[in-house]
Amino acid sequence: MSASPSPVIVLVRPQLGENIGKAARAMLNFGLTEMRLVAPRDGWPNPAAGPAASGADIVLANAQVYDTVAGAVADCPHVYATTVRKRGVTKPVVTPEQAAADMRAAPGRSAILFGPERSGLETDDVALARTILTVPINPEFGSLNLAQAVILVAYEWSKGEALASPPEVTLDPPAPQEELEGMIGQLDAMLVDANFFFPPDRTPTTRRTLRTLLTKPRWTSQEVRTMRGVLSALRGAKAKRST
Amino acid sequence: MSASPSPVIVLVRPQLGENIGKAARAMLNFGLTEMRLVAPRDGWPNPAAGPAASGADIVLANAQVYDTVAGAVADCPHVYATTVRKRGVTKPVVTPEQAAADMRAAPGRSAILFGPERSGLETDDVALARTILTVPINPEFGSLNLAQAVILVAYEWSKGEALASPPEVTLDPPAPQEELEGMIGQLDAMLVDANFFFPPDRTPTTRRTLRTLLTKPRWTSQEVRTMRGVLSALRGAKAKRST
Repeated sequence: MSASPSPVIVLVRPQLGENIGKAARAMLNFGLTEMRLVAPRDGWPNPAAGPAASGADIVLANAQVYDTVAGAVADCPHVYATTVRKRGVTKPVVTPEQAAADMRAAPGRSAILFGPERSGLETDDVALARTILTVPINPEFGSLNLAQAVILVAYEWSKGEALASPPEVTLDPPAPQEELEGMIGQLDAMLVDANFFFPPDRTPTTRRTLRTLLTKPRWTSQEVRTMRGVLSALRGAKAKRST
Repeated sequence: MSASPSPVIVLVRPQLGENIGKAARAMLNFGLTEMRLVAPRDGWPNPAAGPAASGADIVLANAQVYDTVAGAVADCPHVYATTVRKRGVTKPVVTPEQAAADMRAAPGRSAILFGPERSGLETDDVALARTILTVPINPEFGSLNLAQAVILVAYEWSKGEALASPPEVTLDPPAPQEELEGMIGQLDAMLVDANFFFPPDRTPTTRRTLRTLLTKPRWTSQEVRTMRGVLSALRGAKAKRST
């Protein structure tokens, strides 16, 4: 049994209730029970989900619904974004096997994001994650559906459940996502004030770059507090000067 | 790349054409192309298979049909029978992972038998196999469908293949130390200005904390430049306000 809690499966803007049900079934086969839904297209609950779950009703009954990805992962210090193809994002890329080992070794809860059936995760969703999870598939035929992607990740996680290995080093976990968001928000407001975001059409890219950069450190709660203190001091100095 | 040929996936008395198509799709995702069908219930070809294969038509087009399991595995020195639960059979039982390793190490072609959707393999089918392949699943909820069982086995096989080598992570290296020092120096000067270091006897500790925190990210040269841009913007805003 692992010291780390089982990962949370986050379905981002899922389209068909049937696929939510299939994902629940895939999860429960390998002992995962916590599902979160971000803005499911057809609302929630969805009558098509139950029959497709083939008995994994407990997963559906406990599923939590969120408006945003940020909200869904707010309490998770480790966020993985599942993508099929490599993108121009400078984040570490891991296989399901590596992700399972990492999640097991790291203290604190992990969340794994899965995108909508047709399009996958958007760049802004991926930007929230610290790590990209990619299933290595046939380069000439990559056609994994949502439940298949979920089952492979759940399967890899479950493998380690039998082998009991307590984590030997107890490093402080990274801060939960919401604390990171608070710091990013604070900096963002200061940068808006400073006219940092210019020209306007570059703003989304610049914001993503900053987010990637600030997500990379895996700062602890204490470190995030220190950084916020730094930002407050810089803002305070500015305020004092300008009065 | 393995010396052994890729395993043959044998669907024994499959019921729905749709599931044959899904199994083909699952196979091709992980580079398996040879499917054999034993006495498919609705005959072959089956018009429901194509749409469910989502483009894995080559697997269906090359599928061979046999009357008996013995005929389907006649040319294969290694035969695995996939079962969900352990039976009262005295044969070695392996996981998909172990099976993949064994198939790779053993010379000659392997065949993996999958039973009908509803009932699974019969005892006589299992008797033909040398080894039982069982996916370890949640003892309280075992509900793997045919395509899911196929995909897990194909996935494990593919791990040892070239195509499944993890995506090469071409992350940029961390910035040289002097670039990091430049950034830390810039921030430090701003913080001195902002009276951040107070009380004075705590200053060395605070500086060390900040240094640890800013060294941790292993930011690249580009990222360090971005951070310096952020700091310059914050200082610029302050200067502008104070004039």
